[in-house]
Amino acid sequence: MEYAKMTPQQLQAEYDAVSARFQELKEKGLKLDMSRGKPGKAQLDMVSDLLSALTDPADCIVDGMDVRNYGELSGLPCAKAYFAEILGCKSEECFIGGNASLNLMYDTIAKAYTHGLLHSEKPWAKLDKVKFLCPSPGYDRHFKISESFGMEMITIPMTADGPDMDAVEQAIQDPAVKGMWCVPKYSNPEGVIYSDETIRRIAGMKPAAKDFVLMWDNAYCIHEFDGDFVPFPDILSLCREAGNPDMVFEYASTSKVTFPGAGISVMATSVDNMKYMTGLMSIQTISYDKVNQLRHVRFLKDKAHTLELMKKHAAIMKPKFDAVLEALDAEIAPLGIAQWKRPKGGYFISVDTMDGLAKRTLALCKEAGVVMTGAGATFPYGVDPRDRNIRIAPSLPPVEELETAIQVFCTCLRLAALEKLMA
Amino acid sequence: MEYAKMTPQQLQAEYDAVSARFQELKEKGLKLDMSRGKPGKAQLDMVSDLLSALTDPADCIVDGMDVRNYGELSGLPCAKAYFAEILGCKSEECFIGGNASLNLMYDTIAKAYTHGLLHSEKPWAKLDKVKFLCPSPGYDRHFKISESFGMEMITIPMTADGPDMDAVEQAIQDPAVKGMWCVPKYSNPEGVIYSDETIRRIAGMKPAAKDFVLMWDNAYCIHEFDGDFVPFPDILSLCREAGNPDMVFEYASTSKVTFPGAGISVMATSVDNMKYMTGLMSIQTISYDKVNQLRHVRFLKDKAHTLELMKKHAAIMKPKFDAVLEALDAEIAPLGIAQWKRPKGGYFISVDTMDGLAKRTLALCKEAGVVMTGAGATFPYGVDPRDRNIRIAPSLPPVEELETAIQVFCTCLRLAALEKLMA
Repeated sequence: MEYAKMTPQQLQAEYDAVSARFQELKEKGLKLDMSRGKPGKAQLDMVSDLLSALTDPADCIVDGMDVRNYGELSGLPCAKAYFAEILGCKSEECFIGGNASLNLMYDTIAKAYTHGLLHSEKPWAKLDKVKFLCPSPGYDRHFKISESFGMEMITIPMTADGPDMDAVEQAIQDPAVKGMWCVPKYSNPEGVIYSDETIRRIAGMKPAAKDFVLMWDNAYCIHEFDGDFVPFPDILSLCREAGNPDMVFEYASTSKVTFPGAGISVMATSVDNMKYMTGLMSIQTISYDKVNQLRHVRFLKDKAHTLELMKKHAAIMKPKFDAVLEALDAEIAPLGIAQWKRPKGGYFISVDTMDGLAKRTLALCKEAGVVMTGAGATFPYGVDPRDRNIRIAPSLPPVEELETAIQVFCTCLRLAALEKLMA
Repeated sequence: MEYAKMTPQQLQAEYDAVSARFQELKEKGLKLDMSRGKPGKAQLDMVSDLLSALTDPADCIVDGMDVRNYGELSGLPCAKAYFAEILGCKSEECFIGGNASLNLMYDTIAKAYTHGLLHSEKPWAKLDKVKFLCPSPGYDRHFKISESFGMEMITIPMTADGPDMDAVEQAIQDPAVKGMWCVPKYSNPEGVIYSDETIRRIAGMKPAAKDFVLMWDNAYCIHEFDGDFVPFPDILSLCREAGNPDMVFEYASTSKVTFPGAGISVMATSVDNMKYMTGLMSIQTISYDKVNQLRHVRFLKDKAHTLELMKKHAAIMKPKFDAVLEALDAEIAPLGIAQWKRPKGGYFISVDTMDGLAKRTLALCKEAGVVMTGAGATFPYGVDPRDRNIRIAPSLPPVEELETAIQVFCTCLRLAALEKLMA
């Protein structure tokens, strides 16, 4: 029965029952983590052969170079070819980075501030105001980068098709709006795949700022856990065709393909941007870790082989997502206190509670030993205006633990709703 | 016989002979590289076991964490302990970075510009002028960082004891002087070890700028190729004792211990600086590659074991340095046209020619197929005011090739000197 339709007596009875259940769970002294999109141990064990994918020094000579020595700033040709096939762009548009695409994103923004981008009139540090579009709910680490550099973040509502493009097209008329964060496939946290029409409108934007930068974080581009690989368009081509060749920087990594934090990353952008950025990056480093680049290419081979591996990840991930969704369907759906998406890829389930429940729900979870991403984290400045979005990351705990954790979550959400309705 | 004492006839005869020799060498169509401090293949092959130092997934759990997963921004405790022992500082003063200490240095400067350092009143990007002290000849990549950020570089003469401290102490009275680059042991390119007295004066500096940063690049701290390991003082302790606890950032890496560009790096600084910087770096990345950190700790073990390995590097390096020095002694010393240091560690031999010969010598080398570090590179803005310093990097070519390369160099230097004396 929906909580909203309950009589005060019914609410009180429900409150007593849920409180008792909460106390029970609390007394278990749990210590469970659904806070971040960390792959689980079974996924790591599955790719153990990466560790021995490059052990013979004779194998370290490739593309005419010794990967063990200095050089080749933009990365190994074979690593560029690998990512170009995955992303559908050209090899020469790929820059191979270190163990974190986040670092490449940060460095792009940092260079915009210290040196300016290719089409900047001056470094952003010299501007009075820099604004950035933040489709929300979105990825907290993107927003933290913007916040760290003192940007004014503009919340753009997310729709089932991606960012609200009417709002975007309006906002970019302001020349102080210098860019936008996007996770186009299995968006963090909602798991939305941007529609073709949305992507077409994004590629064709006409921002007032000549150095507007589309931060295209394709973090989950091959990360289906339910069903077959869903092809995605090459944003570099689309931007080029729309007359915006230098507007976009695309990012991806093997963090959720091999080892998170010990993989390789890529930044894809136009050849003109590449030339400009490698000029700046040649001051920052001699090259990223080419041994690890080659190790990955040997292990992952190509797109087809990588997609096979992703199927194995999916086999581990799907039961976890199912466990969460089944619990939500059984425990929460009948109560009318929250809604959620049913993603087919990515690392998150995004729950929208009744307004004003997110913080309280997560505080209760914490009390019961279940750590979740902080409430508000999916919005700029960590402030969810309706205090309702909760990001569930089911990947790390084994299914048994996860089932307990989601029970805790459902109980806490019910308790928070009851408190609110009875207040 | 010294060229300066030759009669015009003698000079002409010598010129004819050296020119003929140059033509001979040129016709060989050589392609030799003495441009950068790249270890040679024999050194890389010697550390091949690093590739298989971590192949069992069970070995990936250390210090209570799975190094294959996200987390631990400042690095693995065992990696911190490893570098703390090498540098003589404390574990908690160590931040373990990716494959390049250069990247950590760049990022420190970049953060000074975008966010300011711990004691900065404002980000350096907001200042009209930032000046930086550049002991010269010095490391071109340091100077390039300063140049890229638009700093005004102030040349500080190098002495046999390190930077001219009278000049330094004078310069730091200017509050626009925000820092200094140092390579304290086997300085690049001269191989100078800063004297205890110089280091004491550096640690005790009283700069007008409260956020003055001592960029202490200890790149060659264990890199003796001739003789035993030479202990060096812990600059962090010295600065702390002198009342400058937060003035210094020290950098080192395994680039010339294991694989250049595929090793691990460290930034050591006060706990207060560490707290401030990791706050900023937590926005930039989740962590650096912990798998490679653990791989290195397993392979290198500890300081004693690493010093044993460095003896093996020395056995490969010393004959190369000897070949260069022997050729210079035999071919150049009697002519009175250049002087050079005789380093016992590091990666370079620094030659000071008669004024005005460096550019021409290197242009001739290039003509004859021998690539060297560009003339002027060892000075700010790439301009050597006396056009005389040449950095020789003997590590990459095998000894036979090196012997040819240095013959080319000596011939070109003689020719350049003769051209000048006969002009």
